[in-house]
Amino acid sequence: MADDLAATLRTGDRRALARAITLVESTRADHRAEAERLIAAVLPHTGGATRLGITGPPGAGKSTFIERFGLDGVERGKKLAVLAVDPASKRGGGAILGDKTRMMELSRAEAVFIRPSPAGAATGGVARRTREAILLCEAAGFDTVIVETVGAGQSETSVAELVDMFVLLLPPAAGDELQGLKRGVIELADLVLINKADGELLDHANRAAADYANALRLVPPSLRGWQVPVRAVSALTGAGVDAVWEDVARFRVLLETSGEWVRRRALQARAALWAEIGDGLREAFRAAPEIAARLAGIEREVMSGARTSAEEARELLRLFLVR
Amino acid sequence: MADDLAATLRTGDRRALARAITLVESTRADHRAEAERLIAAVLPHTGGATRLGITGPPGAGKSTFIERFGLDGVERGKKLAVLAVDPASKRGGGAILGDKTRMMELSRAEAVFIRPSPAGAATGGVARRTREAILLCEAAGFDTVIVETVGAGQSETSVAELVDMFVLLLPPAAGDELQGLKRGVIELADLVLINKADGELLDHANRAAADYANALRLVPPSLRGWQVPVRAVSALTGAGVDAVWEDVARFRVLLETSGEWVRRRALQARAALWAEIGDGLREAFRAAPEIAARLAGIEREVMSGARTSAEEARELLRLFLVR
Repeated sequence: MADDLAATLRTGDRRALARAITLVESTRADHRAEAERLIAAVLPHTGGATRLGITGPPGAGKSTFIERFGLDGVERGKKLAVLAVDPASKRGGGAILGDKTRMMELSRAEAVFIRPSPAGAATGGVARRTREAILLCEAAGFDTVIVETVGAGQSETSVAELVDMFVLLLPPAAGDELQGLKRGVIELADLVLINKADGELLDHANRAAADYANALRLVPPSLRGWQVPVRAVSALTGAGVDAVWEDVARFRVLLETSGEWVRRRALQARAALWAEIGDGLREAFRAAPEIAARLAGIEREVMSGARTSAEEARELLRLFLVR
Repeated sequence: MADDLAATLRTGDRRALARAITLVESTRADHRAEAERLIAAVLPHTGGATRLGITGPPGAGKSTFIERFGLDGVERGKKLAVLAVDPASKRGGGAILGDKTRMMELSRAEAVFIRPSPAGAATGGVARRTREAILLCEAAGFDTVIVETVGAGQSETSVAELVDMFVLLLPPAAGDELQGLKRGVIELADLVLINKADGELLDHANRAAADYANALRLVPPSLRGWQVPVRAVSALTGAGVDAVWEDVARFRVLLETSGEWVRRRALQARAALWAEIGDGLREAFRAAPEIAARLAGIEREVMSGARTSAEEARELLRLFLVR
């Protein structure tokens, strides 16, 4: 079955791709085994796409930007896949409804595949699911894969490690107004976009872009020879969006000519191996009955300062390893 | 023996403290068991100190700054412990010699304890050793514990999680000149100091401080109500050092009155528990003969793209868990 699915997927069939991603998202043991066969089958046909991470605080306008950027890409002949990662998917009804109408126009485009984040996804597996979904999109012939994250959680750092280029989308705001953004994320960006450079906010956005450009000159560069561009863009009017596609192309060329492309992909693969091993060990640990029974109590004692973390960790490890 | 050592340590005896830290640094199984008994014995007497992380790129002048800052603290009646963390301790002879003469004046002060980083320390245990050394210093009556890191490695993020306040010391330089600094570290800082604000570099340092102050207004705040101060200081003349002690005091008050002090300490303890568990699981995994024999080959295959990380991870986990 995995081989059939792999073959259909390779023709660019979007339904097959959707089914394949559902398979890698499943936590059922038989699905997992099937998913691994599928990934192994498509592996030789992966690795070609430019993998873009796009993040930003709530209200930055990520969805509208991706829609505009994607439509612009389609005109340029790009085949575009968009994967949404939202580990803390506990939203109210409004937002879910909103989700259904997201990227309406883009989702109707022939050359585009959009995959919303799985409902109620657990944090642990986000990186693996995303990594595998990227591989599936590449096997299906997409040349640009966008991974969209919410900018607030633990997932940013790991997503930054999954992609080739990390794009930060900000509203024309700063400091206190960016409460939703995780600290350290701004410095991880390879490209910073100030959205809403239109109408009344145009001046504001241009000023913010100049301020961020100044600020980023102070931090260590993301790649030798790459001064992180800061652009004012408008998802509404499309202003600045062309330049973003050119930045993406320039960055990829620089990655390739500097040898960073090969080096980063290899390091990403090794990091993925160790992340999977770490996740697997922790899962097995949490699931062991002798651990599960005691864990909550021990966490409480350690948090209150009654017991030391080293002592308790050793005790639990002994129980787990000497079975 | 652990009880005796704990008792002597509690009198503030610096030799006992040094011996205790040597014990927690040891990887020998019997030493480790002894170390855990020691930590458990002193635990009720820990947690009181202000834990400061100080980091910065090579050449920022960390040692000279800490010496000046420490001597200033001694005059204020502080009891100060300095722990150096340098996981990649592969330095040449000159640097090691240099180490011996570091903080000469400070190390002679009565109220001060200085502990250089252990030679050839492995990365894995840095966080645990440092965490335990902090507890020992607190039990010995030190009210301020400084953890110094080199600013380049994996350790910064974990050290930022061990301390109450994270201080970044920079030379009067920016961007490309900060190659040695890990990306994301600037945004983690609770306090930024531009060193060498003296002689010819005075203007330069003041300008850099103003630039960083501007830049930091753009990033999310480290703590509600805390605008990260940026100060030009001179380890040479002592200019600005008083103000740093006042920043530390103000930050601690804000942590305590906002409830963040208690909350952060509890989260740190839980994170420590999970870090120890993760380290222990990975150590046991790497040490298992059936894993050790295959690991290098598998890493190579995954890095070259010949095999998938998920497949290989599952295979290794099966070998390890189904023993």
